[in-house]
Amino acid sequence: MGNRDKKVSMAVVRRLPRYYRYLGELLKHDITRISSKELSQRMGVTASQIRQDLNCFGGFGQQGYGYSVEYLYKEIGNILGLYNGYTTIIIGAGNLGRALANHSNFEKRGFKLAGIFDISDDLIGEEVRNIEIMHMDKLDEFVKLHRVDIAVLAIPKQGVSEVAQRLANLGVKGLWNFSYTDLNIESDVNIENVHLSDSLMTLSYQITQKN
Amino acid sequence: MGNRDKKVSMAVVRRLPRYYRYLGELLKHDITRISSKELSQRMGVTASQIRQDLNCFGGFGQQGYGYSVEYLYKEIGNILGLYNGYTTIIIGAGNLGRALANHSNFEKRGFKLAGIFDISDDLIGEEVRNIEIMHMDKLDEFVKLHRVDIAVLAIPKQGVSEVAQRLANLGVKGLWNFSYTDLNIESDVNIENVHLSDSLMTLSYQITQKN
Repeated sequence: MGNRDKKVSMAVVRRLPRYYRYLGELLKHDITRISSKELSQRMGVTASQIRQDLNCFGGFGQQGYGYSVEYLYKEIGNILGLYNGYTTIIIGAGNLGRALANHSNFEKRGFKLAGIFDISDDLIGEEVRNIEIMHMDKLDEFVKLHRVDIAVLAIPKQGVSEVAQRLANLGVKGLWNFSYTDLNIESDVNIENVHLSDSLMTLSYQITQKN
Repeated sequence: MGNRDKKVSMAVVRRLPRYYRYLGELLKHDITRISSKELSQRMGVTASQIRQDLNCFGGFGQQGYGYSVEYLYKEIGNILGLYNGYTTIIIGAGNLGRALANHSNFEKRGFKLAGIFDISDDLIGEEVRNIEIMHMDKLDEFVKLHRVDIAVLAIPKQGVSEVAQRLANLGVKGLWNFSYTDLNIESDVNIENVHLSDSLMTLSYQITQKN
């Protein structure tokens, strides 16, 4: 792991979750060892890209032996911070917030949902997956009492900057932003913007080029 | 546009929606012309990558003049098929299906929602954005009567393959799959799998490396 100090480009980082998913699938099928060539064929990337990507983190492979699937899976999980037990809250208990709260994959990946917040009085006290929806008035107190690492922003773009700034000031480390606007706040909080329509446009491209 | 016949790599294609979004923002701010250098600074990529990417489609820029924002925006929209008036249906009227139905950006990008389907009798007849939720029994008839280009799969992974195969057989051209399983069906239908947890894992990486 000697190369870990080196700055890794975000393009490489963004490919890690995909490696992690594929390795998880291999494990499920009891495949314990895989060559970069075989992995590359399954994933539809070049073997050289796989080797280059993994070399950013120190390698993991052995010439002529390939990769140990379980070791690589765990190492990538570790690099991604999936064993750190990060705690999340969801801001917005509308359809999207509820859909994300019910997303079983997140818990499986090690993210614990600790609270759900909304401003609508009608929703306060309702439960989603045994978690009570709390009023935004309680947010500051809650974040101060619990260690909250990540806040999911599942609210409309009106007002999202203000909420994001508030969360950053409270010491939340990451914002996962579904509000369809790029956040521009004064903080070094990490922000991951989700642009669902990018994926729809990619599909649209494929249909268009084929027909 | 002479290079359009050339096979363009999916890595380039996946960057087009992002160009499209940024150019849209520039237009909103009445910026009519931009150099690849300026665009690259805003987008956080290299100017050379922008030039290379756009050259895959024939260029659009003029040496020393830069890009016409409106022209480039429209051309990329055209390449992505956003002016083709694609019709979509949503399979699954749970929280995720409803969240996607209410996503205003999709209509803005030219995708028309024509129908929502579910199997739960409790939901049939309910409306989401003035669109009645129909029973899956009506799916075949509906798809045959209306031209349906894209089906959004917002259902659990159990049973999704069967539904996907049925939609492909009905002639639907693209499947936008939120069911957290990779679809493996016999068809040349285009499939775009959404892996929300990839984005969460990327955020987790950033937090982990910083702390």
